[in-house]
Amino acid sequence: MVTSLNPLSLPLVIPLIGLAYALYNTHWVLSRDPGDEKLKWISDLIAKGAGAFLKREYKVILPTGLILMLIIGATYYLLFHSPSLAAYSMLSFALGAVGSGLAGYIGMYVTTRSASRTAAAARGGIDEALKVSFRAGSVMGIILASVAVLTVSSLYLAYSALVKDWALAIAPVALGASLMSLFIRVAGGIYTKAADWGADMVGKVESNIPEDDPRNPGVIADNVGDNVGDVAGMASDVYESFIVVLTGSLILISVFNIPKVFASLILSVTSLVLLSTLLGIQVVRGRVSGRDLALASMRKLGNSLIVTVIISSLLIIIYSILVVKPLEAMALSISVIMGFVTAVAVLYITQYFTHYTYGPVKDIAKQASLSASNVIVAGYSYGLLSATPVILIVAVALGVSFYLGYVYIPASMPIEGGIMGTALASVGLLSLAGIVISLDSYGPVSDNANGLVEMAGLGDETRMVTDALDAIGNTYKATTKGYAIASAGLASLVLFIGFIYEAVSYSNPANGALTVALNYLNVINPLLLVGILMGAVLVYVFSSRLLTAVGKAASELVEEIRRQFRTRRILEGLDKPDYDRAIDIATRHALREFMPPALLAVAMPIIVGLTLGWVALAGLILGTIIVGFPRALLMANAGGAWDNAKKLIEAMLDPELGGKGSVAHKNAVIGDVVGDPFKDTAGPSLNPLIKVVNTVSIVFAPAVAMVSAVNPVAHLGYLILLLIHLL
Amino acid sequence: MVTSLNPLSLPLVIPLIGLAYALYNTHWVLSRDPGDEKLKWISDLIAKGAGAFLKREYKVILPTGLILMLIIGATYYLLFHSPSLAAYSMLSFALGAVGSGLAGYIGMYVTTRSASRTAAAARGGIDEALKVSFRAGSVMGIILASVAVLTVSSLYLAYSALVKDWALAIAPVALGASLMSLFIRVAGGIYTKAADWGADMVGKVESNIPEDDPRNPGVIADNVGDNVGDVAGMASDVYESFIVVLTGSLILISVFNIPKVFASLILSVTSLVLLSTLLGIQVVRGRVSGRDLALASMRKLGNSLIVTVIISSLLIIIYSILVVKPLEAMALSISVIMGFVTAVAVLYITQYFTHYTYGPVKDIAKQASLSASNVIVAGYSYGLLSATPVILIVAVALGVSFYLGYVYIPASMPIEGGIMGTALASVGLLSLAGIVISLDSYGPVSDNANGLVEMAGLGDETRMVTDALDAIGNTYKATTKGYAIASAGLASLVLFIGFIYEAVSYSNPANGALTVALNYLNVINPLLLVGILMGAVLVYVFSSRLLTAVGKAASELVEEIRRQFRTRRILEGLDKPDYDRAIDIATRHALREFMPPALLAVAMPIIVGLTLGWVALAGLILGTIIVGFPRALLMANAGGAWDNAKKLIEAMLDPELGGKGSVAHKNAVIGDVVGDPFKDTAGPSLNPLIKVVNTVSIVFAPAVAMVSAVNPVAHLGYLILLLIHLL
Repeated sequence: MVTSLNPLSLPLVIPLIGLAYALYNTHWVLSRDPGDEKLKWISDLIAKGAGAFLKREYKVILPTGLILMLIIGATYYLLFHSPSLAAYSMLSFALGAVGSGLAGYIGMYVTTRSASRTAAAARGGIDEALKVSFRAGSVMGIILASVAVLTVSSLYLAYSALVKDWALAIAPVALGASLMSLFIRVAGGIYTKAADWGADMVGKVESNIPEDDPRNPGVIADNVGDNVGDVAGMASDVYESFIVVLTGSLILISVFNIPKVFASLILSVTSLVLLSTLLGIQVVRGRVSGRDLALASMRKLGNSLIVTVIISSLLIIIYSILVVKPLEAMALSISVIMGFVTAVAVLYITQYFTHYTYGPVKDIAKQASLSASNVIVAGYSYGLLSATPVILIVAVALGVSFYLGYVYIPASMPIEGGIMGTALASVGLLSLAGIVISLDSYGPVSDNANGLVEMAGLGDETRMVTDALDAIGNTYKATTKGYAIASAGLASLVLFIGFIYEAVSYSNPANGALTVALNYLNVINPLLLVGILMGAVLVYVFSSRLLTAVGKAASELVEEIRRQFRTRRILEGLDKPDYDRAIDIATRHALREFMPPALLAVAMPIIVGLTLGWVALAGLILGTIIVGFPRALLMANAGGAWDNAKKLIEAMLDPELGGKGSVAHKNAVIGDVVGDPFKDTAGPSLNPLIKVVNTVSIVFAPAVAMVSAVNPVAHLGYLILLLIHLL
Repeated sequence: MVTSLNPLSLPLVIPLIGLAYALYNTHWVLSRDPGDEKLKWISDLIAKGAGAFLKREYKVILPTGLILMLIIGATYYLLFHSPSLAAYSMLSFALGAVGSGLAGYIGMYVTTRSASRTAAAARGGIDEALKVSFRAGSVMGIILASVAVLTVSSLYLAYSALVKDWALAIAPVALGASLMSLFIRVAGGIYTKAADWGADMVGKVESNIPEDDPRNPGVIADNVGDNVGDVAGMASDVYESFIVVLTGSLILISVFNIPKVFASLILSVTSLVLLSTLLGIQVVRGRVSGRDLALASMRKLGNSLIVTVIISSLLIIIYSILVVKPLEAMALSISVIMGFVTAVAVLYITQYFTHYTYGPVKDIAKQASLSASNVIVAGYSYGLLSATPVILIVAVALGVSFYLGYVYIPASMPIEGGIMGTALASVGLLSLAGIVISLDSYGPVSDNANGLVEMAGLGDETRMVTDALDAIGNTYKATTKGYAIASAGLASLVLFIGFIYEAVSYSNPANGALTVALNYLNVINPLLLVGILMGAVLVYVFSSRLLTAVGKAASELVEEIRRQFRTRRILEGLDKPDYDRAIDIATRHALREFMPPALLAVAMPIIVGLTLGWVALAGLILGTIIVGFPRALLMANAGGAWDNAKKLIEAMLDPELGGKGSVAHKNAVIGDVVGDPFKDTAGPSLNPLIKVVNTVSIVFAPAVAMVSAVNPVAHLGYLILLLIHLL
């Protein structure tokens, strides 16, 4: 029962509607009152600083990107002797990288410009302020989802008509996106926390001036950091996962010989969710009422997610019944809805472990009355615990969707149908990116607005409004991290299997060789075990390096701020601080420190693949996922919990602990500062790490597989398992 | 070229020599001067407290152990209908558990009694004190290695003559040992750190009295903790690894049909190393001279390790040439020596990352001048980094020994020879347990002696001697952790492969079924992936729970010590503190908190195996190893580094940081306290966790495999991969 419409009409039309809607919203937000001169001046400083950082960052990335693009083109040309395939692959790579960079840039453009408008609106109460900030945030979410769906749909439309090996030609779009996202996440992560640490350590701790005090030379850098780290970083990260899942699913459809209708089906599903997102966003309208405005606003935002999920589920059930056979439609709908359920569950689990209305954060705050060490150990311990329900849910989603696909999805082998089921669950999870990122981007807008109100001295009443908005924003910032990590985990598992099939088909092009070759991947193959251990090494070195980088950058900034306080009469309000120098230090350090770990992540799969063979490379991918996925959850959630334990004490929610300045508060601040590089640098950077190891592997899979066949070390594994097989 | 001697004569005779030597040393140590009345009184308090704790602990464990023994017996009887096999398996289990418990008890008996003698000897200078403490430590090392070799050799001798399935009958000895070691490690770890935290927080931090001040009611509990945690815990842990490696190798020999000469060869190799250990220990004799007595003593101790390794290598080369063909002898010697090299390398790597003469600890101490948060982040980051060279070395040892075995060791299939090669490397690593534990046990003896000198008020000159001894002891305590973790990692990989072969052979007893069944274990099997994720969950829940347990127990102790200080005139020296109540609190908490995580570790493999099948169980084991192994290194080394950064500052080795009481010192103390449960509770407990998951699986492998065959979920994986295979 295929409909008579062009099967790709939905994924080509709906994203355009989305883009139009985002454009309209951008216009609406930018036409709001930008506030008085002082507000405008500070807001411009932040926007300029953030823009300048991204431009310098992109300039640093450009040569690496170009070189990698040429390597991809050359490799494809040498392997397949097809100039067009080489050209298409280079184009895909470039599109992926540009899309990811653009998602970050546009999001940041709108958020930096809407913070001042939110601050100005906050003078009139919470309704208007919430509207401005949420609309601004939704621009980012909608653009991201629209561009992702549009990019992959058009590439698929074009390449599937132009080249036989269209999956190969599409694959580099994922690498481009993940490379860019890795760079943005790592550099932004270092920038934001170096600036935050530096500013807080001298400002709040040493000089006892409030956070966001305009006398602090690091304060603008700190606000710039929120934008380049939280906004651009998160946007490019989730954009990347989205691209990876869509590309990975298409590659699986190609290598499995699954009916092409599934390709358009996957793309249509994501665009239907996008449509639902546009509707869901409308829920955040009208007056916010109730005694606790923050709580009421938060409920409203939460409703927009639930509404989106419900409409999406209905649309997908109807659509799949129209397009495929009833049982297939059932398997397909349930798998996708499993993805939705996983997303919602992960958001609420993360909220439980990081929000101060629940047990864990309350307990950490209590421990703060004992000692700083208690805060650290308690937060770390809850961080460890918080990873486990998320992993369990992902495991269940994996198992159930696999089973449904195994039984009901048509493929040349049931296992392939099963894997397709898993891919559908990942698509479901990721297609919610639009609404999730809308909620997330709202966070930095309100955070920045809050800072601006303080810096521009807009008074306590306005501050109360933006404080309420900021509190909700912080919750979503923390919970979105859980979503981003789960999505990275699922996306990488899908791509991992794609890699294996691709490598296998190129290392043993003979008929029936699949069976023999899959034997390589037995868990007792020593090369696989060595590869898995290498994956653990990669995750550990990468995390360690990022934690160190933040400390290094922060300490130079501390020196600079101290110097300014010493040599000028800034604290007395007589001299202006030199914001630019602080911005420059954070920028230079971030740009210097981000390359080595990022390049390690890109180089390691290639080196392991070429020296130890593709089996060890498969191990490397698996090891990276297994060690990196729980570690990312641990670091993000422990950091979030420490942060909110401090906020709980500051808000005097537990009067016994005292408020700001109490012993408990001092201890909680130590935990919060430890959590900063955990939750905003090392933790989130593990997402693109996991994905980039996968995307590099999948793009170079044919090359690695062919080299493996003549490589003596790699050959060992093959011989060993061939022998088992022949026995 | 098999010699005409009984091939098992070495492993039966040499351990007896070892035991005789240990007995002689015990007699020698106990006949030293136990010091004056006060020293004797305090020392007796500690010995009594430690003895009482172990007795209560063993009593709690007894019912669980008995139930498990009956379950093992019943399972074996039901599966194989052989009463004798059931009886033998129960006997093995009991022997393993008793041996592990005994190793802990004897070691503790000697160390608690030799601390006062070391303290007394320290009045006469470092030579005699070093001699007493090292001889006392060596008792533990020698007994442990002798009992391990003797137990496995006699079981092998008896069972291989009595039953056909001798490997099955032997397997439970590993489970018994690892179960006991899990209990001792976890309970001891909670006890030692709860007491340490409690005593320090009120004593050092709140009341500003020195560590080991006899006025502190928690001080005896703290010293008891050092013994039950560091001595009994480490002894039973390494004893267990030793048993696991020996048993695992024997199981592999049985399932692989490798010539039986290799069984006696492995046992002989370990006993030759034991013989070399007896010689190596002799190096620690004569006068210690030089300006830095601590450094000179440390060199002497280090030499005893190197001498042991060199003699061992020579003996093994000669022995293997006498017993097997030249090429086999080459492969065998190199594999075993790879194990030695790994051990020595891991010890030195750990020393680099945890000792204050090297960069990492110096850097952490420097960060202490900035803030407590810097200390935490820097230590954590070095901890992450420290795991990577150890993992790389283990990976190389794995790869090289596999290759040698693959090519040169006779087995029905080369891959099995390869796995045997890996087993030999693990045997090499573990056979050094005697000398390593001798060095390690020396640590708590000198630590306790140091405490006794303080408590009994023996004066500054004596304190200087025991301070020097204690410093060396601390180094070895930290480095041995690295060794224990690496040994757990390698031991569990050997046993893991044993499990797979065993499960495979029971799930598909038909001919040639091995190939089909091994297909199950393809990394893309969703059941395997789900299992691997479960392994990550287990490690995370377990670590989290242990960290929490320490905090809980410590806070009750804090209350109690505060209460005593409040209600009595202890600080003024007018009233005696009530040590027993503090001991009782630590004991009760440790015994209450240790069961749930320990039982989880035992139950999880059985539950996963019975519900999801043996493929998921294989995944669980692999996931536990891959996530747990690096995490154990991280937690142990970060903890060690924080500890020594504090000591560096206290010893005024970097005068810029100030000494005790400086800001840097306060910040470093926060790091040290965080490190305590990391390095002494959660980190080391991961070793027995990794092993117990393995040993439980291997003992119940036949049952799980047979249930899997009729379990619909488990069947899914089988069907899937059978289909791949048939294609």
